[in-house]
Amino acid sequence: MGLEDNLVVVLAAARNPLNIGAAARAMSNFGFSKLRVVTPYDPSYREARSAIGAAELLKNVEEFSSVAGAVADCHLAVGTTAVGPRELLHRVERLEQGGALIRKQLTSGRVALLFGSEKRGLSNEDLSHCHWLMRIPTLESHRSMNLGQAVAVCLYELARNSEAALETAARGSQREAATANDLERMTQGLFAVMSASGYVNPGAETAALEKTRRLIHRMALTSEDAQNLTGILAKVRLGLERAKE
Amino acid sequence: MGLEDNLVVVLAAARNPLNIGAAARAMSNFGFSKLRVVTPYDPSYREARSAIGAAELLKNVEEFSSVAGAVADCHLAVGTTAVGPRELLHRVERLEQGGALIRKQLTSGRVALLFGSEKRGLSNEDLSHCHWLMRIPTLESHRSMNLGQAVAVCLYELARNSEAALETAARGSQREAATANDLERMTQGLFAVMSASGYVNPGAETAALEKTRRLIHRMALTSEDAQNLTGILAKVRLGLERAKE
Repeated sequence: MGLEDNLVVVLAAARNPLNIGAAARAMSNFGFSKLRVVTPYDPSYREARSAIGAAELLKNVEEFSSVAGAVADCHLAVGTTAVGPRELLHRVERLEQGGALIRKQLTSGRVALLFGSEKRGLSNEDLSHCHWLMRIPTLESHRSMNLGQAVAVCLYELARNSEAALETAARGSQREAATANDLERMTQGLFAVMSASGYVNPGAETAALEKTRRLIHRMALTSEDAQNLTGILAKVRLGLERAKE
Repeated sequence: MGLEDNLVVVLAAARNPLNIGAAARAMSNFGFSKLRVVTPYDPSYREARSAIGAAELLKNVEEFSSVAGAVADCHLAVGTTAVGPRELLHRVERLEQGGALIRKQLTSGRVALLFGSEKRGLSNEDLSHCHWLMRIPTLESHRSMNLGQAVAVCLYELARNSEAALETAARGSQREAATANDLERMTQGLFAVMSASGYVNPGAETAALEKTRRLIHRMALTSEDAQNLTGILAKVRLGLERAKE
């Protein structure tokens, strides 16, 4: 069982079934599967078209009549809020820090992450069931996020830099860099073409060659790219020399 | 002017005006304001109800008829994709790593972040204008995100821990990176020379042009170097054309 199975997303009083679907879709994207809803306004959410790829998850949504019930089996309940710390009685963590705290807790027990209704957020009664609150670092002047987007951002923060992340990173960026030999061949190839097309002033050959070499070294080429370019340059040179015959 | 003003969000061929509105809302949440759209399917997006708090931003959206035009003044163009690294010719970075690279570039120049249509993502032609691609670390089995949620997650990654970003900015920027315009001129120049020297097979021109564009975008050229190389290529082309007379 992964950490993901210890996270429970709780949507309290969501008004729009499309937003419940969007939350479900984001959960599927990031590997979370436990969704609970508290008195949704519209019971049609299980058919939400916005839940692409999350039909299974929606089928298994658990419904509760109170936030207290929805978080009863969780060791930690964290409420999300768009409101700044000064207006609240709870401790408020920014998502970057709060996410780390949640990840830590997920290793040992179940955590509920609560989102309020689109219009009003979590009520004071809802908040009273939370250990602390988490705020996505939005601008003071544009604090309030769309519900589906807020869920996606929070779950991304919880999923980011997982072990899988590091693996892919190692696998990803490994295209082989050009060797000095590759670069020198390409330098000579480009210089020959420049000379053949009259780009190099007589007497300035050495300086031009060095300038060309520096230019090629700045390019951060892969081995394959350097070889392809050298091939192109060789063909161009042939064309230019034929012109002189 | 903050780093945020250097980021341009480009939505290519978005089908649903609600998604454009959702993207605009997320931009407002995280402090970004420059939105460009390329041939949206439905011109009613400026009235999208989903753009809560982003009416001003939507009013200032710039429309383009091609991705090339939308990224022309940007020093770095990054495409987003749901596809894994093995199926693509581009370098693919995970959002965690790619976001750091983008933040760095934002300190010295304009960066375009591209999102494709809801159904198909970015086309091969769109991708050929990108220096590299970025992937949100979703599950293999549930890769494809909702457009508005994908935008929100990417912008959160760029905005998170922004104190750290400011530090990097203070460390200072170096030589000016080539703009998309510089690179496109060089692409056309190299392609013309390849064609003139018989390097391009008849019938394969489009694929060859896209391949050339990707190659040039991988090079990490400065503006000055790109311009010098474009000058060399122009002279070489003249030489090759003279040969045919």
